[in-house]
Amino acid sequence: MTRWLTKEQQSHWRSWLTASTVLREQLSRELQDLHGLTMTDYEILVRLSERETNAIRMSDLATLTLLSRSRLSHQIDRMEAAGLVSREVCPDDRRGQLAILTPAGVKALETAAPDHVEGVRKHFVDVLTDAEYKALGSAARKIADHLEGL
Amino acid sequence: MTRWLTKEQQSHWRSWLTASTVLREQLSRELQDLHGLTMTDYEILVRLSERETNAIRMSDLATLTLLSRSRLSHQIDRMEAAGLVSREVCPDDRRGQLAILTPAGVKALETAAPDHVEGVRKHFVDVLTDAEYKALGSAARKIADHLEGL
Repeated sequence: MTRWLTKEQQSHWRSWLTASTVLREQLSRELQDLHGLTMTDYEILVRLSERETNAIRMSDLATLTLLSRSRLSHQIDRMEAAGLVSREVCPDDRRGQLAILTPAGVKALETAAPDHVEGVRKHFVDVLTDAEYKALGSAARKIADHLEGL
Repeated sequence: MTRWLTKEQQSHWRSWLTASTVLREQLSRELQDLHGLTMTDYEILVRLSERETNAIRMSDLATLTLLSRSRLSHQIDRMEAAGLVSREVCPDDRRGQLAILTPAGVKALETAAPDHVEGVRKHFVDVLTDAEYKALGSAARKIADHLEGL
């Protein structure tokens, strides 16, 4: 027997789907218009900048960004052509490759970050009360933990 | 002055990003493995099935699915090749096109729906208490309303 969603459950599910899709779309458009970056470009720049070496193995970056190896490879090709990252053979494993943040990538991230954070505030954080924001974050954390534990 | 996010705000934002990305990925993979459909295929089938005529103008479908005209066109090409939808010239506007659910599309949706709903329950609804689920849905609704009002 299929346990169909109730009308209310269905409505919350749709709200979540819409909010997550449209929010990503909006933030991506703002990054694109103001800084010529996609959300995926931005996320990769952030991930790389968080490492002391400014470098991440391509295989680890695929896991972090949830991109397939081949999509990540195209993505990094584009970012390399734009001068934001470079590739190098892993020093400890010649079959592996590293994606490395370039000085231009650091600069692009620093330039885009204030506008991006402003967008996250305007379209996400500031739309909710503190209590609503916390409740949303905690619920999202539980869902993320569940999914990451699969 | 950039109003950077606090550590807690940043953590909730990351939870949201992770949950929304990984959830879509997981549900899409399940649809693909069990029924050979992507989430986007599924969403289009649902939208079409909700119309009495089983048809939506391509331009309206682009708005509903948040796809660009050209991405939607490729998407509908693929679904047409799979026999799930067909295209017709709008009867009331010869420059417009309709996407129409085929009997095979109805069948595909009916076959996939029970498993998809089971996935939505397992990875989303049932992970939370009723109160958490409601709070999440209401917060997502506020964000969606804000974005749709832009």
